[in-house]
Amino acid sequence: MSERITVVEKITQANDQVAELNRARLDEQRIFAMNLMASPGAGKTSLIERSLPLLSKEFRLGVIEGDMATSLDADRAAAAGAESVQINAASCHLDAPMVKQGLDELDLDNLDVVIVENVGNLICPASFALGTHKSVLIASVPEGDDKPYKYPKMYRGVEVLVINKIDLLPHVSFDMDYFRQGVEALNEGVITFPLSCKSGEGIEAWVEWVADSARERIGQA
Amino acid sequence: MSERITVVEKITQANDQVAELNRARLDEQRIFAMNLMASPGAGKTSLIERSLPLLSKEFRLGVIEGDMATSLDADRAAAAGAESVQINAASCHLDAPMVKQGLDELDLDNLDVVIVENVGNLICPASFALGTHKSVLIASVPEGDDKPYKYPKMYRGVEVLVINKIDLLPHVSFDMDYFRQGVEALNEGVITFPLSCKSGEGIEAWVEWVADSARERIGQA
Repeated sequence: MSERITVVEKITQANDQVAELNRARLDEQRIFAMNLMASPGAGKTSLIERSLPLLSKEFRLGVIEGDMATSLDADRAAAAGAESVQINAASCHLDAPMVKQGLDELDLDNLDVVIVENVGNLICPASFALGTHKSVLIASVPEGDDKPYKYPKMYRGVEVLVINKIDLLPHVSFDMDYFRQGVEALNEGVITFPLSCKSGEGIEAWVEWVADSARERIGQA
Repeated sequence: MSERITVVEKITQANDQVAELNRARLDEQRIFAMNLMASPGAGKTSLIERSLPLLSKEFRLGVIEGDMATSLDADRAAAAGAESVQINAASCHLDAPMVKQGLDELDLDNLDVVIVENVGNLICPASFALGTHKSVLIASVPEGDDKPYKYPKMYRGVEVLVINKIDLLPHVSFDMDYFRQGVEALNEGVITFPLSCKSGEGIEAWVEWVADSARERIGQA
């Protein structure tokens, strides 16, 4: 298997180099970019749909969609008012070259915020830097409260944790204390937003964090 | 990238050969084995917990758990009465050599059914044959009705589809017709069991299918 390890190392190195180039390009353009990761169906696209109308009052938004097989998500992001490009990942994760391709297709001179929607997967995306400024994980209540314990690498590597579908708390068994305990053990003090894309509860605090991060990056703060 | 493709091809070939050995071994022992796949939190372990008490009236059961980081699932399966072994996958999927290792640890002479719980992931496990007789995908209602369209490879490659968490149908937007349409386009006539591990609704039909498959394999039918 040593041959494989060498190849994997080469891929990771090349990825990191392209990620650095992506970051430099975003910084030069004064664009705030985030990498949105989650399980399939946790609500990545729904969160984008909910956030765009609020964010677009102040910012010009672009979305890079990493869908495996369809343009369903890109269509939804475009309908919500973002400049949207679709990367057909044909992979279990996005990597930095794919994001570079997405940045090539966006009109960066006219954007303030770029949201990268990763492929729905709690494992592989954690291993690939993209060059974004913040990594955001969306957990969702019906997935269960044991997920931090079972997918530690993903929970460890993010700056922000969104806990979506809190409207379902009365209908599923989800011990928020047990969940948060698992999160804290892996990622102490991680910024957390419990919210519901369905009811809208908690969306404003999340959007305010995105806006603050964007202002800081753009240099208006 | 041609070097990488060669390595990947070698890995797949080796995997398939071990999968064939696993299958031969299961057949010789007259054991029925299935590969349970799903997103994180769709209910793989819950389905095992619900099924074991019913199946154990007639069959001796073993479970191979492919957890990334903990023995939480293996503990739950053992508590539900199965002989349970834990494979620390440290990977985004199980492969045939890992399942071979699990079979080595189980007392196969005294088992009728082996359930392999794959790593929670809708992408990577679809590419690795394990040697099991049936592949079962668990979808869950709160994941959303667009999942067949977005993860076609997984939906295409299974013999059985369980639709879990139907108790949440009143609380989420999930168009069952749209979902089933997507499934049918990929996998015509796939055997489907809508059920709820929480309420127990629909569990019996699923268990009956497992029992029939096991009887056929054991040669009692």
